[in-house]
Amino acid sequence: MQGFTVFIICCSLLFVTHGQHPRPCAAPPLFEGRLVTIDPSKHFEFIAAFSYDAFEERERLVGEVITGPNQTIIVGTILLYKQHALYNIFYHNKTCSKSPLSAPFRRVEVPHDAHFNGQFVIGSSSAPGEGLLANSWSGEVKEQGARYHLTTTEIGCLPINVLYHTNETGWIVTSYYDIIDGIKDPNVFVPPEFCK
Amino acid sequence: MQGFTVFIICCSLLFVTHGQHPRPCAAPPLFEGRLVTIDPSKHFEFIAAFSYDAFEERERLVGEVITGPNQTIIVGTILLYKQHALYNIFYHNKTCSKSPLSAPFRRVEVPHDAHFNGQFVIGSSSAPGEGLLANSWSGEVKEQGARYHLTTTEIGCLPINVLYHTNETGWIVTSYYDIIDGIKDPNVFVPPEFCK
Repeated sequence: MQGFTVFIICCSLLFVTHGQHPRPCAAPPLFEGRLVTIDPSKHFEFIAAFSYDAFEERERLVGEVITGPNQTIIVGTILLYKQHALYNIFYHNKTCSKSPLSAPFRRVEVPHDAHFNGQFVIGSSSAPGEGLLANSWSGEVKEQGARYHLTTTEIGCLPINVLYHTNETGWIVTSYYDIIDGIKDPNVFVPPEFCK
Repeated sequence: MQGFTVFIICCSLLFVTHGQHPRPCAAPPLFEGRLVTIDPSKHFEFIAAFSYDAFEERERLVGEVITGPNQTIIVGTILLYKQHALYNIFYHNKTCSKSPLSAPFRRVEVPHDAHFNGQFVIGSSSAPGEGLLANSWSGEVKEQGARYHLTTTEIGCLPINVLYHTNETGWIVTSYYDIIDGIKDPNVFVPPEFCK
């Protein structure tokens, strides 16, 4: 009987361990936040506010593109994947360019074939509010010859960092922060009047 | 009377705003965790477990020093600032070297003259456990001709990232994670028998 109990406990532990192994996951369908993209090889830095809508398959970024000392432009980009349209909006002179968007919409997610590297706490787990439980993932996008490292929150599957590498681009790093659930104003996805 | 009430409310708001502005702070006196130090200019990477004791002014690091492909050594370092002694411990062949330690002990803290850049949330503030409130600081250590960027947790003043720059070294990045309050085993600060 004791042996059977130990067997059951071991099985439960296995089950718990199995259940605790983080699985690839998707971020919520609607969220907003800020991001910083750094491409060290091109000395390119992009600091932006972004809005993401997986239901309507659309994204919007507004931010500063820094390409060198004193070289900063404020650019807005609206990506409407269902309409295959991309708008680049230059607010300083109220001009706009529309281009075809052939890339498919990609959900913000951990790809199903991503390798789970491990779990860690940013900050501390010793007291509430002192730390954030995060998962580290890596993998390859074979059709693009790319490798990636991805850090997501354990709760919510939200992006923290993405490192993306191809032989052409080298490593490009994007960090996400100040994320909130939902879209404050859905009009941000509507190109401004002067784009017509 | 209404004017006075508005005045009081405004004063309270000023007080609240003033009170909310993060102040330079110090990390707890005893903690342990992990760190990754990357020195891109030297292709040097150090992944270590660390223990920190500000009462006894001592630190201990054990980790992998990666200086190139397939070039990894496990090294332990014990820094006893009160005894002005530094031990480098090579576990693979049980050897040890002791050197004088002239550097003064430095608390893990935000220096009192650090500039507060802003507050941000790693992850999301929309749900519990999805985010971590962090503060961004920067400053200079004039006597060392160094600049730094520092990210700490708002609660607990724990280090998240330190970027340190001198003209000799370039940028060196250290990221901290898996921090816990206290020291699990104080014996980690005692050099092993074979160091005698």
